[in-house]
Parts: sequence; C-alpha cells; structure tokens
Amino acid sequence: MNPVLVENTRGGVVESFHRGSICVVDKTGKIVFSVGDTQQVSFPRSALKFFQHIPLILAGAFDKFGFTDEDLALMCGSHNGETIHTEKVEKMLSTLGLQMESLHCGPQQPTHKKDFVRLIKSNQEPTCLHNNCSGKHSGFLAYCKHLNLPTNSYLQLDHPLQQEIRKITSLFYELPENQLVVGVDGCSAPIFGMPLYNQALAYKNLICSEKFNQPEITSACNRIVKAVTSFPLMVAGTKRYCTDLMSVTQGRIIGKTGADGVYCLAIPEKEWGIAIKIDDGKMGPQYQVAHQLLKELKLISTTEIQQLEKYGNFSIVNFAGNVVGDSYSKFINI
Amino acid sequence: MNPVLVENTRGGVVESFHRGSICVVDKTGKIVFSVGDTQQVSFPRSALKFFQHIPLILAGAFDKFGFTDEDLALMCGSHNGETIHTEKVEKMLSTLGLQMESLHCGPQQPTHKKDFVRLIKSNQEPTCLHNNCSGKHSGFLAYCKHLNLPTNSYLQLDHPLQQEIRKITSLFYELPENQLVVGVDGCSAPIFGMPLYNQALAYKNLICSEKFNQPEITSACNRIVKAVTSFPLMVAGTKRYCTDLMSVTQGRIIGKTGADGVYCLAIPEKEWGIAIKIDDGKMGPQYQVAHQLLKELKLISTTEIQQLEKYGNFSIVNFAGNVVGDSYSKFINI
Repeated sequence: MNPVLVENTRGGVVESFHRGSICVVDKTGKIVFSVGDTQQVSFPRSALKFFQHIPLILAGAFDKFGFTDEDLALMCGSHNGETIHTEKVEKMLSTLGLQMESLHCGPQQPTHKKDFVRLIKSNQEPTCLHNNCSGKHSGFLAYCKHLNLPTNSYLQLDHPLQQEIRKITSLFYELPENQLVVGVDGCSAPIFGMPLYNQALAYKNLICSEKFNQPEITSACNRIVKAVTSFPLMVAGTKRYCTDLMSVTQGRIIGKTGADGVYCLAIPEKEWGIAIKIDDGKMGPQYQVAHQLLKELKLISTTEIQQLEKYGNFSIVNFAGNVVGDSYSKFINI
Repeated sequence: MNPVLVENTRGGVVESFHRGSICVVDKTGKIVFSVGDTQQVSFPRSALKFFQHIPLILAGAFDKFGFTDEDLALMCGSHNGETIHTEKVEKMLSTLGLQMESLHCGPQQPTHKKDFVRLIKSNQEPTCLHNNCSGKHSGFLAYCKHLNLPTNSYLQLDHPLQQEIRKITSLFYELPENQLVVGVDGCSAPIFGMPLYNQALAYKNLICSEKFNQPEITSACNRIVKAVTSFPLMVAGTKRYCTDLMSVTQGRIIGKTGADGVYCLAIPEKEWGIAIKIDDGKMGPQYQVAHQLLKELKLISTTEIQQLEKYGNFSIVNFAGNVVGDSYSKFINI
C-alpha cells in the first residue's frame, strides 16, 4: 500500500489525500530513492511518447519528409490543442498527403481554456486535430507512408509500426516483450504497462543509451532530447508543467506527463531516471510531487524553484476567492 | 488505511483506484455495515445543507416569505446552475428585497454543459447565481431578513445564523459543539467536520428525529425530506445522481452529494443513515459506491437498479469511442 504523497487540508484537518509511488534510478539501474511500491504495474501513457518515435527516426522517415525538431517535439508531446499545435499537425498531415481523418485518435476539447472558448463561440466542435495525441499520430503516419505500410490499421497491435514500438519499449523499459502488459490508450494506440521501476529505467536509458551499443539508437535519443528541450511549447503548451519545467531548466531536466497521474523525468547531469505515479490517477498531484522531489534532491536551483512555484504546494482558494486550505506534497524526507 | 472502493482497469490490470470508507448505522446508532475507518474526520460539505436550513424553518422565516417546498429543495441543493435553478434563486432574492450581490458565494461555471455553453456563446461570465450553493445562501438570507440580522456578515462563524447552524449540527451529528472541526466551504459559509460515523448518524437522525423530543424539529425534518424527495430536480439537476436517485426511488431513499467525494443517504423504511467518503476527494466514485451499496444491501429493486445503472460500474471509453477498460466498485461483500 503506497504512502500519502499529497495532502489537501480544510479547517486545519486533512480533507483528502493522494497516495502514490516514486522511483529514482541511477545509471546502473540502482534505486537511489524511492517511495512506495516500485514494482506496482501501471501504464506510462503519454510518457511513452518519446520512445514511440524512435522507430520513425531509425527508419529515416523523419528526415525524408523534411520534418523539423519542432515537429518532433510535437510528435512527442501531449499538447493543449492550441492553434500553434493544430496548425502544425495539419501541416505535417499535408506533407504526408493525408487528411485529419487518418488520425483515428478521436476528438478532444482543447485543454487550454482560451482555445476551448474560441471553439464554442465559433460554433465548432473539437476534432482529432485538438486531441492531445494528434502530433504522435502524425509521426505514426509518417512511418507508415515512408515504409508503404497501411495507414488505416496503424493503431492495431499487429501492425508493423506497433510491433517496432513494442520492441523499442522492451529495450528501453528492460522487460521482455511478453512481460509488457498490453492496453489501449486514450487515443486508441496500443499502450504497454510495466512496473514503476522499469518506467524510471526507461527515462534513464533515454539519456544513457550508449549501453545498447547501437549508435543509431543513441543518435535518435539525442535528437528527441534536443527536440523536446528546444521546443517545450510543443510538448504541452501554455501554462503546462512539462513546458515550463523544460523552459525554465533550459534542457537540464526532461519531463513528460502521462494520463492517470503519471510523471517521468530524465536528469542528464546525474544520469538518473525518475517515475512518479499517483494511485488514484488524478492529474495535478504528480506535478506537485515532481516539483517537491526536484527541490529535495537539489536538482533545481532556488531561482528555478521560484519560477516553477505555482506547480508546487498551493493554497486552496474557493469560488469567492478566499483561502480555505492548503495542498502540499508530503513524503519521506530525503 | 482505508481499502480500495473503486478500481479502474486498462489492458486487464488495475491502472488507478480510489480508497475510502463507508458507514451504515441503524436507528440506535449501531453500525450495521462499515468499510474502512469510520472514525476518520472529514467534512460533509454540501451534505450538511439539509441541516443548515432547520434554523430557518424553526424561526418561521420560511413561511413568512411564502416560500414553497420547491424553494426549500433548492435551498438544500447543490444545483447545476441551470436556468430553472438560477431563475428561482433570483425570485427568492427578489422576495427578500435583495440582489445577487448579497449571495457572497462567488461565481461558478454551470455544471450542466448546455448552460455552460450557452453562457460562453452569449459572452456572459458566470455569476453567484450559477454557484451550486446559491439556493443555500438565499435560505441563509431569508433567516437574516426575518430576524433583522445583518446580511453582510452572515457567513461569519460568529453570526447568530451560523451559531444556530452549529447548534443544530451538534445535535444531529451527536458531537459537542467544541468537537466539531470548523472550516470554510467552497461558497465561504462555515462548514463543520466530524468522523464519518457521525455523518451517518446525522442522516439517520434526519428521519428519526423523534428521539430529540422536539416536535418542531421533527416537523422541520419532515418538511425537508418531503421537499427534496418531491422536487429532486432542485437538489442537483439534469443527469445528476441525487436527482435521479430520488426520482427513481420516489422518496424511498434520500441522497445528497458533498464536494471532495462525499455521499450521504437516509433510508426511511430501515431507519438507517449512510455516509460514504472517497479518500482522494474525486467526484464520481462515491456515486458508484452508493449505487453498489444500495444494490448489495437490497435497498433498491431490480428495476430501480437498471434505471440508475449509468451511475454504477461502467466501461471506460476513450476519445475515439473505443472501450479500453472498466470502472467498478469493489468492497467486502455484505
């Protein structure tokens, strides 16, 4: 049973709380810090996205279509559905000679309120372009077009693309393919599940891939890390933790959110990988925990802590604007 | 540590889950069924609303202003901010010679999507009228107007109205006033906290108030129960569990939601009170648990179970409309 990671108070007592687990591994795969059950199986969800585009780069599809690092960041991202995101997805699809109907990810309301309101005011319904995974699907389609693979069945587990992704997942998460739990993600792509420990390993391997002795894989990893840290706005969007964390730390820290309370990080200067999972799946507490962890592990400076303060502990404010309680991360001191 | 009450799966494994506690008491206050820690302190939040209007009825304020049972149901409700709700609040305020500025509950987006979209399309911002507690505040103001008490400080704990509510809370929740935790609710009204056991007691006492030997209190309770079961649409709104539960069971079961994962019920035919709290505060799982509990305790018929099925276990459907997992309540079989 995992310990409490975040508490919310009212009137001085804890009214609600979030349990979860944290795993930090070093270059050798040794756990340097952990809280809770690091063997609990869960799905990295969108934190898998960085690895889902390694086959695309290895196959040479990325360069063939003249995609930029900014495009790659969007492919690896869970975007807000802001205009800067949807326009870029449309452009990638156009390069591939495809329409948004090929995305197959389903429509999603834009996460960013401004764009959400704009859609409603213009009597428009959200489309697949607004889906936070539309960049990822564009990358998938690029792979298919490059290798003349079917673009209608690319989300099926037995499609060659998904089989390649499963191989890469097995490599980076250090689990045999048959030990990966198979599920379907929010966007209908196959998703693989594994213990939290392996999720931390994968993020360490993203920045320590030399151990695989496959220079083209290391080159792909470097490209992905460069892309997401150079264009963090594409990885999430306005007022999002991933974007702000990577902007503020200028590439020193790589962070990616996943649905259902997931956060994964890679720390190049330490050669560490980190995975965080909130048991109840609430989105939000994982950022508080990540912020607190980076602070306690002294991985971010005082200035950076201040710049990212809004993602840490906060006062609970009611509809009338009055402070009624506190929300704070709470785990064993390091 | 409370057990798991609701699990969400993906790919056949549990991806996220909600812990919590349940307490069912009989007429004598004996626990007839429980799960988890029934002594854990939490706030009933909006499940306190039924009791917050007893002083209003006792003082004769309700009749003086010619309010109807439908008005009373709205005062006791956490409404969706639908037009039927906001218009009635406006009318009550007008009867009191007050404007919405007196509500002091803060603006809230309407919970019901249709009204939410309508506001955005007409370039309007939500107001205090849309706040789910605006009916409650209208009731508070009626009490103040009736007794010539200040209407600007009525949300302060030392205001005579709040002192009366504290007395009533102490009576129904069977705890001395000085043992009630004091907090501030989402609408800025004082809120009292207590163990889950006492929250179950209060809902039992709502339907078994003869023990207090105060006929006017029993009469007030009967009036509240009649109002909320006769006008369930006022207690919550379209597509809401409280409304549908009380409509379907035609007054045989009284149910009220509270923020942060609370659900309280009174079962007149059994003379039972029930309180449910989800540890992590998520809204939704408490309805699944309530539905399952009513089913397992055989408090609702097969037909009623079917009519309320959408609040029970469900398939998790992704953006593209595909089933990707299941959400189901899970607790010790009764």
